[in-house]
Amino acid sequence: MGEFDLIAHYFQRPARRAALGIGDDCALLTPTPGHQLAISSDMLVSGRHFFADVDPNALGHKSLAVNLSDLAACGARPVAFTLALSLPHANESWLAPFSQGLLALADAFDCELIGGDTTQGPLNICITVFGEVPVAQGCSLALLRSGARAGDDLYVSGTLGDARLALDALLGKITLPAEILAVARQRLEMPTPRVALGVALRGVASAAIDVSDGLLGDLGHILKMSGVGATVQVGKATQLIATDPLFTWSREQFDAQTLASYRRTLALAGGDDYELLFTAAPDQRAAVAAAAQASQTPVTRIGQIDAASGLRLLDAQGQPVENTFVSFDHFG
Amino acid sequence: MGEFDLIAHYFQRPARRAALGIGDDCALLTPTPGHQLAISSDMLVSGRHFFADVDPNALGHKSLAVNLSDLAACGARPVAFTLALSLPHANESWLAPFSQGLLALADAFDCELIGGDTTQGPLNICITVFGEVPVAQGCSLALLRSGARAGDDLYVSGTLGDARLALDALLGKITLPAEILAVARQRLEMPTPRVALGVALRGVASAAIDVSDGLLGDLGHILKMSGVGATVQVGKATQLIATDPLFTWSREQFDAQTLASYRRTLALAGGDDYELLFTAAPDQRAAVAAAAQASQTPVTRIGQIDAASGLRLLDAQGQPVENTFVSFDHFG
Repeated sequence: MGEFDLIAHYFQRPARRAALGIGDDCALLTPTPGHQLAISSDMLVSGRHFFADVDPNALGHKSLAVNLSDLAACGARPVAFTLALSLPHANESWLAPFSQGLLALADAFDCELIGGDTTQGPLNICITVFGEVPVAQGCSLALLRSGARAGDDLYVSGTLGDARLALDALLGKITLPAEILAVARQRLEMPTPRVALGVALRGVASAAIDVSDGLLGDLGHILKMSGVGATVQVGKATQLIATDPLFTWSREQFDAQTLASYRRTLALAGGDDYELLFTAAPDQRAAVAAAAQASQTPVTRIGQIDAASGLRLLDAQGQPVENTFVSFDHFG
Repeated sequence: MGEFDLIAHYFQRPARRAALGIGDDCALLTPTPGHQLAISSDMLVSGRHFFADVDPNALGHKSLAVNLSDLAACGARPVAFTLALSLPHANESWLAPFSQGLLALADAFDCELIGGDTTQGPLNICITVFGEVPVAQGCSLALLRSGARAGDDLYVSGTLGDARLALDALLGKITLPAEILAVARQRLEMPTPRVALGVALRGVASAAIDVSDGLLGDLGHILKMSGVGATVQVGKATQLIATDPLFTWSREQFDAQTLASYRRTLALAGGDDYELLFTAAPDQRAAVAAAAQASQTPVTRIGQIDAASGLRLLDAQGQPVENTFVSFDHFG
């Protein structure tokens, strides 16, 4: 099967929102009047962002999910995406489940595949995603990294650290009971982009980012872009590890102090969480709660923004915790 | 140097057209009212689309040029692009010239780098480019592959086959004098996207495509999408090989018949030409000439569109030429 047949068979569907789907030199997209386009690109590389033997259906899901998560962090509604794919072989047994996982998530978010490229080479998945954000009275309603102000509350959505827990188990660094690995692995391989929450936080949150490299690392981007500092309640973050209540298994592998340190690493620097980390003024607490409820997404207040630069970590007793957590750097 | 420093150092510049440049979760782009967005993605892989030891400056140029060529084929004016880059190492001696070549072409076409991604992995360059096409009275002025009609003239811009000639020489298939290789190699490594011609052909051409996989292969896409056939004057195409007058070198390598066949392969199935192949009604000949002059781009009429399906090749004497030319398939 040649390149063009391959594309047509697995990815071509009737064009909906786009004036032209796959098959011309360009896709044509008509933006909704009064809206800005939010655009993000992510490239996923075998051995770096996923295991070479990962379930292709899950990989299709995750490839788009990490891009939708960027739209969520801007409060943008997904519209469309392009897919560029480098594959060692035009392997149908891989392409069929990959395209199923990808297009199932695309359909769930009404995000249309409008174009792309396919070539032979080491496995590489590059998706560029397009969303829309309304512009009201000349002002964009997009959530930015730069809007955090001293006194703002700091929130994170959903759960933290489970993806990293699964990764560590798959890398053989720890041993997990099968039923706990299954829960954690779901978070690693099938993350849920927080699109509904991002849209609901327009006009409510002062700044937002998605947690992809680890909570503290991504918080650092908000602090830098906003010119502020922050205090994080470490205990509130570690309580967000979904598999935490199941941690009895860990007693055989860790002493108490090592376990406490490992839990902090999972929550604060785990990475691959794809939750929203955001700030909002204290007078917006009811609005934040309403946005969480409207989007059916749990949200937890884990700290606050400070005028003083730098990052302060406090334990449950209000004592400082040393920040030894290093965020993931794709060239680290 | 970490990932974020790397991006900032070589690629970050003050945002111009975009509301947000590199450094937030998404770039924000405000489309011009009354315009559609034309979007195209191309992925370039080391060893497949370029030699691993290619001059990084030329590679930066070509990576964007092939994308701008897709915009040209739609008659779209370039606006912005994203760059996703997978690199084995964060190598400054490669990144500096690559970014220079890339951004020089971007500046020449007023096309702003608005976002992207950088990761470690096998060298892979994925660019998604955005252009604008006006919509007049509810009708897009974009050039499509599907608009060719029986009786239309068939045109190609610029020159053909020189990129393939250089490729064959670099692969050791033929031997070229240094001064001829230099001319041909320029066409292979530094193609000129025909953006001005594409824009000038809005409302004039009935269908268009850019020649990337070889003239006959790309013509096949127009014919299929338009439901028509075509007749191509082979001699008119082979006369477009820029280095053809220099072919005296070839007498040592080819007999006359082999040379004639090789020249046809170069022109009809060379690939990597990045010229525009387009159709226009015969009553548009003056308009086509005016578009060529306005864009300072030579244009040659090489055939016509037929109602009968299929492709007919004729030599200078009007005799049929057998079509043994296979276009480049990225999984071929």
